[in-house]
Amino acid sequence: MNKEQPIGIFDSGLGGLSVYKELKRLLPQEKFVDFGDTARVPYGNKSSEVIRRYAFEIAYFLAQKRIKLLVVACNTASSIALNELENAFRFPVVGVVQSAAMEVGKLEKISRIGIIGTSRTIKSATYQNLIKSRLSHVEILAKPCPLFVPIIEEGLFESRVLDETMDFYLNDMRKRKIEVLILGCTHYPLIEKKIMDYFNEKVKLINPGFSAALRVKTILGENNLLNDTEGYDEFFLSDEQENFQKIARDFLGFDIPEVCIIKENLI
Amino acid sequence: MNKEQPIGIFDSGLGGLSVYKELKRLLPQEKFVDFGDTARVPYGNKSSEVIRRYAFEIAYFLAQKRIKLLVVACNTASSIALNELENAFRFPVVGVVQSAAMEVGKLEKISRIGIIGTSRTIKSATYQNLIKSRLSHVEILAKPCPLFVPIIEEGLFESRVLDETMDFYLNDMRKRKIEVLILGCTHYPLIEKKIMDYFNEKVKLINPGFSAALRVKTILGENNLLNDTEGYDEFFLSDEQENFQKIARDFLGFDIPEVCIIKENLI
Repeated sequence: MNKEQPIGIFDSGLGGLSVYKELKRLLPQEKFVDFGDTARVPYGNKSSEVIRRYAFEIAYFLAQKRIKLLVVACNTASSIALNELENAFRFPVVGVVQSAAMEVGKLEKISRIGIIGTSRTIKSATYQNLIKSRLSHVEILAKPCPLFVPIIEEGLFESRVLDETMDFYLNDMRKRKIEVLILGCTHYPLIEKKIMDYFNEKVKLINPGFSAALRVKTILGENNLLNDTEGYDEFFLSDEQENFQKIARDFLGFDIPEVCIIKENLI
Repeated sequence: MNKEQPIGIFDSGLGGLSVYKELKRLLPQEKFVDFGDTARVPYGNKSSEVIRRYAFEIAYFLAQKRIKLLVVACNTASSIALNELENAFRFPVVGVVQSAAMEVGKLEKISRIGIIGTSRTIKSATYQNLIKSRLSHVEILAKPCPLFVPIIEEGLFESRVLDETMDFYLNDMRKRKIEVLILGCTHYPLIEKKIMDYFNEKVKLINPGFSAALRVKTILGENNLLNDTEGYDEFFLSDEQENFQKIARDFLGFDIPEVCIIKENLI
């Protein structure tokens, strides 16, 4: 392993760009290889077995790119497949879920935490178990919110549809005065401000993409693998994505130079 | 080809059950083999090339079940892949889109038609072109409505979220007084009543699943392939589906005896 090798990132779709954004901000000297599984998106309502198979296919693909570390940017895949990926590959594997749980575990004087994510992420209870193992006294309110992703992809940031959906999903958490809310899906940072408004600013939001970026920096530093020459990033998708540049801009605030579409089966 | 052979049906997910329901009602003597591609659902925002690949994989799978006719129950796959499937296989291939367009083509004194469906279905313009070729004078309002499927899958039939979403998508069609509305996605028949209410009953709804069932009956009759002994239907999915029996009941009004999960790659 040497410091010039790239960092691999994957997500079920384009949501991983919100994680890439945090990594790029914290580690501008690194080279990234980003994979979005747009041909099979979303993972959130699929079985653990199928999610595991997809995660392995992509990890093999990225391993061939000689990555020095893998970031599982998908909350669902992190919840389901992280241990197996760690056991299979020699490079370190960083999951957004595990990183966010570590960050939350360090918070003090917290009594009530909310978690939102896909059905599979919430049902796996990975977030809940990891947090409970660190903060046993804390009360956890976990809620699958499958409508947020399609609403964000429709671009309905300012709409009665989003307002009603937020109220439907988050009303109980607001009433019960959660102090921390984990945005357990890569799309959710795009409605961060709306969520803050909904809670009248009275909640601390955790963006697992940021937690993962911190974790990656620590691991690379400890292993003397931080790069020092700026890199050229690569982007792969398993299918074309309509309005890709527009969506990328929504996520990143800047354009992506070029995207390579891998349409054949991955292995 | 003989009359005892089954009829194949496929859809991107469970929505095909609404088409199966119409077929079963009209042709109770037939044996059906139904495939739902739950591992890769939804198709509606994927590229034509990927949708075509998935459609062919499933058609090959069903061909091995010795079907006498194939119903493409997915509006998106019908829009994209029907001609290629017809060219590749010897059995007749019936698409929901083509069947609905034929039915609409027979309507008289119609001046304004609405079509709702996935992004890919609407963007392919297959519905629009087929209808224009039959009713050249007619005005067509076509609208992609990607939020309806996840709302239906959340079971939010009576909710402000659905009300606001209907108003967001259908307001313009109501204002412009469409006379006919094609429910161009297999999930939409589940909110048929809500849509009728929204239009104050002043619209004729076309359910392409019903159109396809009529078309299948005609084709089998013409070819002397109508079965006369009751059959035992088979159900295949490419992934487990949480709450499958509940969803099946929402679609069908009855339970499905047994489902076989095909988790390996299809070909």
